[in-house]
Amino acid sequence: MNHLLQLRSLSINEIMNILLEALRYKRGEIPESETGKIVSHLFFEPSTRTQYSFNTAAYRLGCQVINFNVSSSSINKGETFYDTIKTFASFQSDALVIRSSLDEYYKDLVGKIAVPIINAGDGVCDHPTQSLLDLMTIYETFGHFSALKVAIVGDILHSRVANTNIEVMERFGMTIYTSGPPEFMVADYRFLPFSEALATMDIIYLLRIQHERHQEAMLRSLENYHQEYGLDAKRAAMMKEGAIIMHPAPFNRNVEIADDVVECEKSKIFTQIENGVFVRMAVLKRAWRDKRR
Amino acid sequence: MNHLLQLRSLSINEIMNILLEALRYKRGEIPESETGKIVSHLFFEPSTRTQYSFNTAAYRLGCQVINFNVSSSSINKGETFYDTIKTFASFQSDALVIRSSLDEYYKDLVGKIAVPIINAGDGVCDHPTQSLLDLMTIYETFGHFSALKVAIVGDILHSRVANTNIEVMERFGMTIYTSGPPEFMVADYRFLPFSEALATMDIIYLLRIQHERHQEAMLRSLENYHQEYGLDAKRAAMMKEGAIIMHPAPFNRNVEIADDVVECEKSKIFTQIENGVFVRMAVLKRAWRDKRR
Amino acid sequence: MNHLLQLRSLSINEIMNILLEALRYKRGEIPESETGKIVSHLFFEPSTRTQYSFNTAAYRLGCQVINFNVSSSSINKGETFYDTIKTFASFQSDALVIRSSLDEYYKDLVGKIAVPIINAGDGVCDHPTQSLLDLMTIYETFGHFSALKVAIVGDILHSRVANTNIEVMERFGMTIYTSGPPEFMVADYRFLPFSEALATMDIIYLLRIQHERHQEAMLRSLENYHQEYGLDAKRAAMMKEGAIIMHPAPFNRNVEIADDVVECEKSKIFTQIENGVFVRMAVLKRAWRDKRR
Repeated sequence: MNHLLQLRSLSINEIMNILLEALRYKRGEIPESETGKIVSHLFFEPSTRTQYSFNTAAYRLGCQVINFNVSSSSINKGETFYDTIKTFASFQSDALVIRSSLDEYYKDLVGKIAVPIINAGDGVCDHPTQSLLDLMTIYETFGHFSALKVAIVGDILHSRVANTNIEVMERFGMTIYTSGPPEFMVADYRFLPFSEALATMDIIYLLRIQHERHQEAMLRSLENYHQEYGLDAKRAAMMKEGAIIMHPAPFNRNVEIADDVVECEKSKIFTQIENGVFVRMAVLKRAWRDKRR
Repeated sequence: MNHLLQLRSLSINEIMNILLEALRYKRGEIPESETGKIVSHLFFEPSTRTQYSFNTAAYRLGCQVINFNVSSSSINKGETFYDTIKTFASFQSDALVIRSSLDEYYKDLVGKIAVPIINAGDGVCDHPTQSLLDLMTIYETFGHFSALKVAIVGDILHSRVANTNIEVMERFGMTIYTSGPPEFMVADYRFLPFSEALATMDIIYLLRIQHERHQEAMLRSLENYHQEYGLDAKRAAMMKEGAIIMHPAPFNRNVEIADDVVECEKSKIFTQIENGVFVRMAVLKRAWRDKRR
Repeated sequence: MNHLLQLRSLSINEIMNILLEALRYKRGEIPESETGKIVSHLFFEPSTRTQYSFNTAAYRLGCQVINFNVSSSSINKGETFYDTIKTFASFQSDALVIRSSLDEYYKDLVGKIAVPIINAGDGVCDHPTQSLLDLMTIYETFGHFSALKVAIVGDILHSRVANTNIEVMERFGMTIYTSGPPEFMVADYRFLPFSEALATMDIIYLLRIQHERHQEAMLRSLENYHQEYGLDAKRAAMMKEGAIIMHPAPFNRNVEIADDVVECEKSKIFTQIENGVFVRMAVLKRAWRDKRR
């Protein structure tokens, strides 16, 4: 049994195995069926991609799926997060895929739950399967990681995607820069002005402006975000040959990305979404293998 | 691969094939299993019958089912309709069953989505599987369509059911009349006073008063709707021998239909619901056949 | 075909058969597969344990599952409870698992629905599968029922769990007492002060304070509920040797039960939840057997 809580606890080798397995599934390799297994999805924050791509992955493996509906659950009667999760563990679900706005929600669970937990996003900390599908998309595009230069653009401060990606991408030998409005930057990370990033990076990785996490005041100052940091066709044309655009989605059209760029040739956004299914198949498979470590 | 967007784009022959296939399923023919396929249901308007009858149909074919829950999705983070649908297409769902309040929502999707789209209702325009199950019920009851006379009674103006039915029923040689309050009538269609309809029609097809689409003012004037146009036992007794009552449901008890008529012998309402499953099985099967046209 | 509406309509023998079957499933016996069957879950009140444990049970039997989502259904268009249930029966679902706040909601359905109905809770009346999993847990722990003494503690007045349990436990030869604040007690039942219950009972069965059913005024008087009736470590230590703690859950931590008691050795709370899956497998199996009576 293997949890997947933080990507930083996996070695380069373990991660590479997941990516290669996911790529084999994409090329049509049929995984051994997991008929009879039940994967329970408990999402305490809204989700489209992560939840339904995990649903799809579980189905493709032959599993059954339960989607916990928070709004019609006993959460309404005051039941705690811990007791809800422990309940699904008591059902002997074969895996729990959990998203919560609580940072490191899993700390209270590990050791008390005999079921693999797969972190589908915790607060502003981690989003391991997002990083895995990003890595898969990069590896599929370039055939390697080493020496690739990436600029992550936007709200670095509130992004679990940035957090998880920066750590793992550096381990894979990529060089990561951040770009965007000063109030979104984190001092620890290398900074690059947006125009310079456009001209020199292999990957422009855009982040979503998370309207729901920002104050009204900050949002007003964002009104000209598109003008300053929005990736439009003109700016995309400045990118170097072979460079690609990535975004974890959902994206705000005409805020961080212009309509005509979303599905342009450089954009890998829907490839990332497609790859998410294959990566999550490999992550579920890994959850049920003997613990290695 | 075949979309089902508007019934008017299907020939009489194609429609008849769907109906005959559905009737065979009803008689117990077991369809070839579609194990491994995933049908995703994206309903942006409330639904009971259409959504869960599609769920049932997909299960009866051996498919797996995803029900997109709008209220806990990234729609809350401002994701667009197009990007949501494109996401499910990127998952490589095997069919997308979509309902939206947008007229012809599919116009932006066709050509950009490599997955069959099945229209489960678009705005006030079309509801093809409703018409198919209506046709199946009529064919099952009368054994033919030609020369049957139908009155559609109620809110013709806002009804995608009326819109789809009138076109296809006329193609099948039926004669369609409309009846109801003047403010709900459409000038293009034949009008018949309700009492005359009762006495002369083979089919009285009632529509639901769509409270949610009407202004307060109009609703007040509807207070006596039941008195003027409600089908009660007394009026049902005036119907000609062999004539039947249909309704797409949900129905407003004691508005357009009286309690004691809902399950009377003339009423085919729950037969329509039952037939919906078989018609949708045939529609899903058709989606995965080679494109004919 | 067998409904399960009230436990009182089942003989001791029939109940015992369900418990023994559930225990066999727990020990690893594989039930004959029910592939091709569809179980529809219609919960008109919030639920975590009951709904998803039924989901799990149905999957373990090889069935498919539909979860009716009330909030995005035609209930929003005014469709009635009866018509909604009748719709799922018309789909030829193989079983309907229903929870409603209406006492004896099934009275209008029985005889009009050709599908087994399994009561997952009706108003303040019955909750048969909860009692079955309670009985299973007791039988598993003590190896018998006869002469066991049980105190049910808390809001007896509003509890369908207490109602169902008291009737069936007495039939099985157990002696039932009730305890808690006077305003929650029912005159018909034996009363025992809480301290006496702690010292003498084999089973302390706690009930949840149902905040959602009580007036503001009553809630204020509940502020010291934990002090007077809350089961904390000190009180748990007063229980007689071999005695156990039960709770139907969800529980209010530090109201009727203290944090450090929830998962203590005496507590069977998560065992009850685990057993719920096996009992519900047996209940579904029974639904599809020939009617005995």
